[in-house]
Order: sequence, then C-alpha cells, then structure tokens
Amino acid sequence: MKVAIIMGSTSDLSKVEPAAGILKEYGVEVKVRCLSAHRAHEGLSAFINECNEDGTEVIITAAGMAAALPGVVASQTVLPVIGVPLSGSVLDGMDALMSIVQMPSGIPVATVAINGAKNAAYLALQIMAVSHNEIRTKLLAERKEMEENAMKTNEEVMAKFQ
Amino acid sequence: MKVAIIMGSTSDLSKVEPAAGILKEYGVEVKVRCLSAHRAHEGLSAFINECNEDGTEVIITAAGMAAALPGVVASQTVLPVIGVPLSGSVLDGMDALMSIVQMPSGIPVATVAINGAKNAAYLALQIMAVSHNEIRTKLLAERKEMEENAMKTNEEVMAKFQ
Amino acid sequence: MKVAIIMGSTSDLSKVEPAAGILKEYGVEVKVRCLSAHRAHEGLSAFINECNEDGTEVIITAAGMAAALPGVVASQTVLPVIGVPLSGSVLDGMDALMSIVQMPSGIPVATVAINGAKNAAYLALQIMAVSHNEIRTKLLAERKEMEENAMKTNEEVMAKFQ
Amino acid sequence: MKVAIIMGSTSDLSKVEPAAGILKEYGVEVKVRCLSAHRAHEGLSAFINECNEDGTEVIITAAGMAAALPGVVASQTVLPVIGVPLSGSVLDGMDALMSIVQMPSGIPVATVAINGAKNAAYLALQIMAVSHNEIRTKLLAERKEMEENAMKTNEEVMAKFQ
Amino acid sequence: MKVAIIMGSTSDLSKVEPAAGILKEYGVEVKVRCLSAHRAHEGLSAFINECNEDGTEVIITAAGMAAALPGVVASQTVLPVIGVPLSGSVLDGMDALMSIVQMPSGIPVATVAINGAKNAAYLALQIMAVSHNEIRTKLLAERKEMEENAMKTNEEVMAKFQ
Amino acid sequence: MKVAIIMGSTSDLSKVEPAAGILKEYGVEVKVRCLSAHRAHEGLSAFINECNEDGTEVIITAAGMAAALPGVVASQTVLPVIGVPLSGSVLDGMDALMSIVQMPSGIPVATVAINGAKNAAYLALQIMAVSHNEIRTKLLAERKEMEENAMKTNEEVMAKFQ
Amino acid sequence: MKVAIIMGSTSDLSKVEPAAGILKEYGVEVKVRCLSAHRAHEGLSAFINECNEDGTEVIITAAGMAAALPGVVASQTVLPVIGVPLSGSVLDGMDALMSIVQMPSGIPVATVAINGAKNAAYLALQIMAVSHNEIRTKLLAERKEMEENAMKTNEEVMAKFQ
Amino acid sequence: MKVAIIMGSTSDLSKVEPAAGILKEYGVEVKVRCLSAHRAHEGLSAFINECNEDGTEVIITAAGMAAALPGVVASQTVLPVIGVPLSGSVLDGMDALMSIVQMPSGIPVATVAINGAKNAAYLALQIMAVSHNEIRTKLLAERKEMEENAMKTNEEVMAKFQ
Repeated sequence: MKVAIIMGSTSDLSKVEPAAGILKEYGVEVKVRCLSAHRAHEGLSAFINECNEDGTEVIITAAGMAAALPGVVASQTVLPVIGVPLSGSVLDGMDALMSIVQMPSGIPVATVAINGAKNAAYLALQIMAVSHNEIRTKLLAERKEMEENAMKTNEEVMAKFQ
Repeated sequence: MKVAIIMGSTSDLSKVEPAAGILKEYGVEVKVRCLSAHRAHEGLSAFINECNEDGTEVIITAAGMAAALPGVVASQTVLPVIGVPLSGSVLDGMDALMSIVQMPSGIPVATVAINGAKNAAYLALQIMAVSHNEIRTKLLAERKEMEENAMKTNEEVMAKFQ
Repeated sequence: MKVAIIMGSTSDLSKVEPAAGILKEYGVEVKVRCLSAHRAHEGLSAFINECNEDGTEVIITAAGMAAALPGVVASQTVLPVIGVPLSGSVLDGMDALMSIVQMPSGIPVATVAINGAKNAAYLALQIMAVSHNEIRTKLLAERKEMEENAMKTNEEVMAKFQ
Repeated sequence: MKVAIIMGSTSDLSKVEPAAGILKEYGVEVKVRCLSAHRAHEGLSAFINECNEDGTEVIITAAGMAAALPGVVASQTVLPVIGVPLSGSVLDGMDALMSIVQMPSGIPVATVAINGAKNAAYLALQIMAVSHNEIRTKLLAERKEMEENAMKTNEEVMAKFQ
Repeated sequence: MKVAIIMGSTSDLSKVEPAAGILKEYGVEVKVRCLSAHRAHEGLSAFINECNEDGTEVIITAAGMAAALPGVVASQTVLPVIGVPLSGSVLDGMDALMSIVQMPSGIPVATVAINGAKNAAYLALQIMAVSHNEIRTKLLAERKEMEENAMKTNEEVMAKFQ
Repeated sequence: MKVAIIMGSTSDLSKVEPAAGILKEYGVEVKVRCLSAHRAHEGLSAFINECNEDGTEVIITAAGMAAALPGVVASQTVLPVIGVPLSGSVLDGMDALMSIVQMPSGIPVATVAINGAKNAAYLALQIMAVSHNEIRTKLLAERKEMEENAMKTNEEVMAKFQ
Repeated sequence: MKVAIIMGSTSDLSKVEPAAGILKEYGVEVKVRCLSAHRAHEGLSAFINECNEDGTEVIITAAGMAAALPGVVASQTVLPVIGVPLSGSVLDGMDALMSIVQMPSGIPVATVAINGAKNAAYLALQIMAVSHNEIRTKLLAERKEMEENAMKTNEEVMAKFQ
Repeated sequence: MKVAIIMGSTSDLSKVEPAAGILKEYGVEVKVRCLSAHRAHEGLSAFINECNEDGTEVIITAAGMAAALPGVVASQTVLPVIGVPLSGSVLDGMDALMSIVQMPSGIPVATVAINGAKNAAYLALQIMAVSHNEIRTKLLAERKEMEENAMKTNEEVMAKFQ
C-alpha cells in the first residue's frame, strides 16, 4: 500500500506532515515530495508517471494561493487525487479552495477543508479500505475509539458544569 | 461494483442524474436515493447501514444550502463519501460548499465543484479503479479519447481563425 | 426551567461558557454537553431524545466549520434550537454561519451572531419568558438596567470630551 | 395565541405571505404589518408597544438590504424576535443577513435563512409549543408526515432509477 | 458650527476619537455621545431631536457588527448623517459596511471606509464648507499642504533609491 | 443651488437619471456629465475645476467596476463628493463598492448603496439643506409624507390579512 | 508581430473572440488555440514550446472555474502571459480570478478583469508597443480618439439634460 | 532599460522594495516614486508624462484600499502598467484587488497577486525581454536555476521523510 504526498512549497511542510504520520501509523508506505506545478513542471510530471506505474493508490496534493498543483496532477493520472487548500496568503486559503475545488468536468479533485491535511490522510485510507480489509478494520476501530473518546470528553464537560 | 447516490431533495434530481448515467456506462450498479439529513433522519441512517453491509464501494452525496447530508453520511461510514455542493439557494452554492468542505478532523468528505455531479461520478470511478483494473483501463481509454477530442476541437478552433 | 447547551468540540468550551453563566443567573437549570454531530452521532441522538422527554425548553447548539450540529439537532426535535456559529477555522466563522443559518424549509435553526453565545442565552430566556412571567420580569429589569448603564456611559463619554 | 409579522416594504409581501399561511393553519392569530424601521419609525414603536401589551408571543420581522428592522424591534421588546433576511438587492440578501444576524450582546435576533419566511413561521410555532401542548402535538404530527412523505419521495426516486 | 459624533459602544472610543480632534482643530464645536441604537433607544431619539433643534450641521455615527445606528439616526433627521463602519467583530467590518451602506431609498447614509473616522471628520468639514467660507479656505490650505508633504515624501523616497 | 452629476459611462445613464429628476423637483440646477476617470481624464479635470469656481455645492459621481471616478473627483475638490457604486459587471457592484468606499485618509467620498442614485440625490439635498432653509423645509415635508404613506400602506397590508 | 491566444474550452469562444479581432486590426498575427491545461496537457506543452521558438511575443490565456491554464502556461515560458478570468460557473468568475491572479513568486500572470478579453488584447498591444513604434503610434491615436469620443458622448449627455 | 515603480503611500515601502531589488539585479534602471493618485494628483501626472518621454518601458504601481493609482496611471500612458494590490486595510487587500483588476475596456492594468511586488518585477522583466535578448537569456537561466533548486528542495524533503 503506497500513497504519494506532494506539496507545492517547503513552507507548507509543517501543515502537510501530520498526513504522513497518520498514513504511516496505518502501515502505508508514504512518498513525500515537494514539486510545485509552476516551478518544477517536469519533475512533477516525472513523479506522476512514477506513481502511475509503481502501484501508488492515492495521491495527496497540498498547495496555497493559485493552487494549480492538484488539478495538474489530476490531469495526468486516473489515480484518485486529493487536494488540500492551504492558507498561505492573506486570503486565508479561500483562493486555494477556489483553485482546487472548481475543477472542470472529467478531471475531479477530491477537495478537503482548508489546511485539512489530516482529513486528506483519512480520506486516502478510506479509499484504500475499499479493497484493503485490514485498513477498513483499523478505520472502524479508530472511529469507535473516536466515539468513545467523544463520550468521555462529554462526561468531563458534564462534570465541569455540575 | 456498487455506488450509492444520495440527494437531499427531489429538486436536485436533474443536477444529480448525470452522475448515475456515467456510472452505469462503466457497468457500475447504482443505488439512487433521496434522503434529506434533516427530513429523513432515520431512513438515511438505515440506508447508510445498508451500504456498509452490501458491498457498496463509494457513496456520492449531493445537497444545497446548509448541506449537512455529506457530513452526516460520512460520520456513519468509513466508505469514501463524495460531496457535491448544489446551487439551490440565492447564495449560488457557496453556502453548500462551506457546509460540505469544511469538515472536522477524522471525518473527511471528498468535495467536488458546485453542481459537479459528473466529477463526483468520475471520482467514484477513480476510487474503484484502485482495485478494479477494468475500470482503470476504461478510464485511461476515456482520458485518451478526451485528449484526442480536445486536440480535434483545437484544430477546429485554429481553422476558424485562419 | 431547563435549557440544554451542546457544543461540538471542547475547544469551543470558553466560547460557550458565558451562555451557561447567564442562564444560571436567571435560575435556569443548564445541561451542558459536548457531542459532535460527526463524532458522537449516537450519543447526540440519545441526548436529544432525553431533552424531548425531560421538559427541556430550549436547546442551544454551538459549532464551527461545517457546523452540522445545530441542523442535526433541529431535525430530531420540535423544541426551539438556537445555533451559535463559532470562528474556529481560518474562515472566521463564515463557514459555520453558512452551515447553520441556511436551513431547508420545515427545520428552522434560530441563528445568532458568530461567537454570540451570550445572545443565545438571552434568546433562550426570551423564549422561556413567553410562558414564565418571572423571567420576563427579570429580563425587563435587566433591559432597563442596560439602558440606564448605557446612559451613564454616555455621560462619562460626554464628560471626557468637554 | 398571537404572532406579529412585520415586513419593511410592500415589495416583500409575497416573500412573507407563506409565513402567515402556516401560522393560520395552526390556529394562531396573525397580525401582519408593513412598518419600515427607517420610514415608519413612530408607527413601528407604537406597534411594538401594542405587541408588548396584548399577549403577542413572537414577533417575526422580514427586511432586505441594510435590514435594521429586526434589531430595532428586538431593542424595544423582550418577546422573541425572529429575523428573515430578504434578497431584495443586487447582493442577494448577504447584506440583509449581515445586518440581522450580527447583533450586539444583550439584544438577540433569531435569524433564519435568506428568504426563509416559512422557517420563521415554524420557529415561531416551536417557540409557542414550549407552553402550548396542542401546537407541540401538531408540530410532531407534521414532522412525522414530513418524514413519511420524504420516504415516499425516496421510493419514487428509487423506482425512477431502476 | 456644531457637529455631533455618536458611537454605538465605548469600545469604539479610540477609533472615533481622531474625528473629534480634527473637527476641533477647525474650530468646530463637537458633541460626542455613546448611544447604541439597540441599547439606548430613547436616549438616542432625544439626542437626535436635540441636534435637529440646536443648529447641529452634521451627525457622524460609528458602529460595528449589525450597525443599525447610522440608519436609525438618518431616519429621524434630515441633517446629513455620516456612517463609519467599525471592525469590531470577526468579520473585520464587512458586516458593519453592509449594514450601513445598503440603505433604502429616501434615507441616505454617507458611508466612509471601514474604521474611516478621520474621513468622516473631513467629509463633515467639506459639507460645512459649502456654506462656511472659512472652513473651505482652511480645507483648501490643508489640501495644498497635504500635496506639498506628499511631494516631499516622494523626494525622500527618490533619494532613498538612488 | 447647483449640483453636478458625473457618470463614468453612458451605459449608466438610466441608473443615474432618477437622481437628476429628484434634484430638479427641489428646484436645484443640475449639471449632468459623462466623464470617465480613465477615458476622459482631462475633460474631467476641467469640469471639476469649473465646479470649484461656479458655485456648485455638491458633486454626485456614479461608476461601476474599478470605479476610480469618485475618488479622482474627490482628490481635486473640497466640495462634498457623493459616490454611487453601480452593478455593471458580473460582480454585482461589489467591485465598485470596494473601489469607492475604501478611500484613504484625507480624501473622503460619501458612499451610498449599490445603484443608490436616488439616495445620492437625497444626500445632496440634505447637504444643501444645512444652509438652504427652503430645502430643509421641503425635505421635512417629504419625510412627513413618506411616513404618512408608509402608515397608509401599513393599513392596506393589515386589511389584506384580515 | 505574433500573439497567441489560448482558451480552455470552446464554450469560451465568444468571450475570447473580440481579443483576436482587436489584435488583427493592429496588423498582429494571431494564433488562436483551444487547449485545456487539464484535458490537453501535452498538446498545450507542445504549443507553448512552439510559441517559445517562433517569435510569439505575448500569450493571452482565458479560462473559467479552477483556471489553471494561465499559470501552467506561465510556468513553461518567459514570454509575458496575460490571464483572463471567465465567468463560466455559478461563482461568476471569482473562482477563476482567484485561480489566476494569486500566482506564487517567480511565475507572474498579468491578470485583467473578469471576461476582460478586450483588455487582454490592449495589454498585449501595449507590451508589443515597447519595441514596436508603429503599434505605440496607433495606440496613442486610438487613445486620442477614445478621449474625443468620450467628450462627444459627454456633450450628448449634457444636451439630453438641458 | 528603465522601469518606474510608483507606490501610493510610504507605508507601502517595505512591500514594494523587493521589486526594485530584482530589477536592479537585472541591470535595469529603476525610478521609484511615492505619488498617491488621491494626494499628489499633479505630481503624478507630471511623472507619468516624464515616463512617456524618457524611454521608460514599464510602470509598476502598488496601492492599497480603493487603489485608484494603477488605473489613473494607465489612463495617461500606453506603456504597460502593472498593478500590485496591497493588503493595507482590514479587508486584506480584496478591496485593492477589486479596484485594480476590474478596469474598463480600453485601459488595461496587468494585475498580479495581493502583495505580489516580486512578481510585478518579474512581469516587467518578461515584458522587456520581448525586445531585450539579454534579459530573456537571464530570465531563462534563472528559471532553470529555480527548477534545479526546486528539485534539490524536493530531494531534501524526500530525505527527511525516509
């Protein structure tokens, strides 16, 4: 099981890192790259081709401002491409969201929340879980734990207000 | 291969229909439902449970305004959930986009463009293609055809301007 | 007299707390819960059912981002549901406002200002005052005091500029 | 049981009328007025005072553009005030939404969706249902019917796609 | 020559103060008040009436969020009313701008920039200058000085880059 | 009594015309011009100079898109300049509003609602009324009539709903 | 003198055509292409390379929604690239504007107004005029004519209002 | 080779400075000015005339809020005018972007990203490179270096995650 993560700039590194962490905890091999659609055009194409050949199952892309990266990747693969709009500019990521989610017909990008790298990882896992039962099992367990933790938190909040 | 499509209101029918058409062309079994998160709460939960059990591989959801449907579905399954914001209200779908894409950590929704039902279908196919080689082959063929058509269109445009 | 306050995340605690304080000053019993619509789906339904049975008169809900909580609560009760959009994300609460106020016909949520938890409490009190005369009397007194304080402040400002 | 509906302009009449219809079906006495906060300042105050004295339980207000009406009404009563932003201007009601929902602390307005007059009526009914059991019973019945209709619609949609 | 300045809240004091300073430098008598449209309804009306009678020539109003103050003042006078949207809330004053500038026909508010209290003062002076020649003369002199200072600044910038 | 009205384009004519009508009803001499800040740079400056010399009391400006006209006029006069943002482009006048209201310190433009030419006329009248008692008297009479008409309309609405 | 015009979709044809017309009137050779960044990835790169070699002086690009085309072109050339955001989607071109103007450092796109294809042509001409004196002369003549026409229009407007 | 840079206010100095630095590295003579369209009207016109006569090839303009500067400059020259929207106000530069990019037909401004002064310099260089081969050569070299650096960064990122 292999997932690629491509960010557009090293300044995005800390925002993207949590996605790699979550995927590794699930035993997924993670290939992290920093390849701007605008500054590393050929290197990006080479890497997408590599993903198309080497069994990569999902590509996560993260970019800010006029975030062309997710769409450019999506146009060169039929692997599911996830897009994470980042809030790098003064426009708080609304520019990146518009640039990523409003894709033309035929070339979808699965967009998550602004700065939502963690959810990009979970979405990648859910996509892989369609055919990998062990991931599905682990995701269901984590969801159950999440719900149990939520209920514990709820009890702490209840106690605090009594 | 099975995909579920859930819309929030019958007024969304014509916007959602193209997704079902594309999926059927790929030989995918499509289950279409109209189950509002706000008006058909229990029927919706029952259907999500059904999807969790019957081998459904992707759930496409489409809703307008305060579009809770995609998130509510996502919270009850670990199947990949695709969200299509619809432009039903005076706010042209920006309300639905905000309500669908800005999901909290742990519960992702793969959001596509406003009224982007066709891309929801293609994204579902790309997700299934991870484990279904025949879909991958067909998607690659369609992409090739799309590119060839694009180049033919380009030649017509060139001719028009000479 | 009983009011329920449900927040979507413990990170919202400090924003929600003032509402509980105001209600208690009016002698209202306050039940505070932390039950995300997305992460504590069943616990939330159980609590709404409890509110439907135990004489709770108003439910205040507070959530950020793709804030499904208020609408999900509203879909399971005919008690008045107040929604407080919170500014947790980079979008300063505009995402939560869109997700809360743009409800479909038949399932209203009484929306207040972004981070307006205090006003959620006052709105709850005004709703209860319809049938509880002692609250109406107290609210009228507080309004009068508010106006008197406003006039005192005005005099201080006048003095400052003379 | 009495509810007041105040609109800011006769051009809003058709948008507001459905609210009166719903309330009357529930046996509620409805007082409809057209009193702009900006053009009928004194007439408005007189009517609010009347509502404060004659047993009116909820005041619904509807206005477009710089919609001061809901806030001005709210400042002169402790009855619950519901605000309906209308889409009269080129800004599609975003101006009215901002003017209605962003109230200062102490003077809440229960805001519903842009052009959401129907939900204003349902919210008024839910507020009155806190102390009027017959309304609560009727609202619960209508909700049940709404859910049953939703499930019938769902079956029609299912049939259409088989 | 008399100008009234009304702010909606003492938290706006520092944003409004510069306007009073500019007016005083021009020999204008300034009456500063803190009278919220929502919290000091009657005190506000009394003060507007006073302005209507005592020779006040312009009324400057400054408010944030659902800023009803400028419109409410404008509805009770035919003196020119200037509105300053303030950035008190998480929405950075866009809410106040919408609430102030989008006035209905017949009741104008002269709106200046968000937090533009200084320009409210200059606009008031320009309005008074229509009939007060000494203000016109002083404004023209200040404009000339402003232009001379601008040209000096320009020379400093030129020097810096040589 | 003289007012100048400058529009940026003849396509704005029908939106601006009502302002001229209102001013003429008040016996004001109206000078209407079509002088784009971008296309008739020198003609515009010549006309502003004329206004500065010939006793013009207020300048109304109306423009759409990147509406520089109001600010450019304001920078060449100390007469009060009123700006009307027009909705000519796909952005519905938000672009013009931003370009007109957000003026830098020292050069105010009195901004009215998008397409608010009528209010520009009323604001001009209110400004002239500061020194012209006959306009003040007429404005007060019209306000009184407006309020009486509002009350008649209210009675018609009341009748309709009984 | 050669300019390339690239649109992303044939549905943009009528919006882009005026640019070609203006350029031809100036004796510029125009190469028009329809090459989507997302659907004709390789054909686009081939054409950009051609432009880099054949003496093309400016590349005009026009695209709607998540408009990656201008940025992708800009990343493969050091010719000046002009971007025209188109209003194809429900978001009226704001999505395209964000996607085109917010380019990262090092890869500029010269962005013009939404649907501003005519200005893209004029900007291309102004760029070529830097080294082509005959274009500069013609542009200056057209500007003069534009100003004269503006002054004639002004006189017609003046006449109409006298 | 000469480029003019005009900013609207000295507070913009640090945002504009990097553009001058880049241009100087390319051996371009840079004329930096601080000339507000609103406060230094005549000085600005004089400087534009100077640029029109002295062989200046591109004019870069940078301004915030109701940024009339770029359009006013563009209306007085046929040199290519680049506009940099600055984020000086509470609206984070959206006001300046609207005021700069939405120019009327015939008077284009080449708009770059909010605070994108560096890209304004690169765009100016690309414009000059059309006729100056040495700049073209240098730009191509810098692009190559940029791509090589991008690939090195990519390798560091890869190493970090292994």
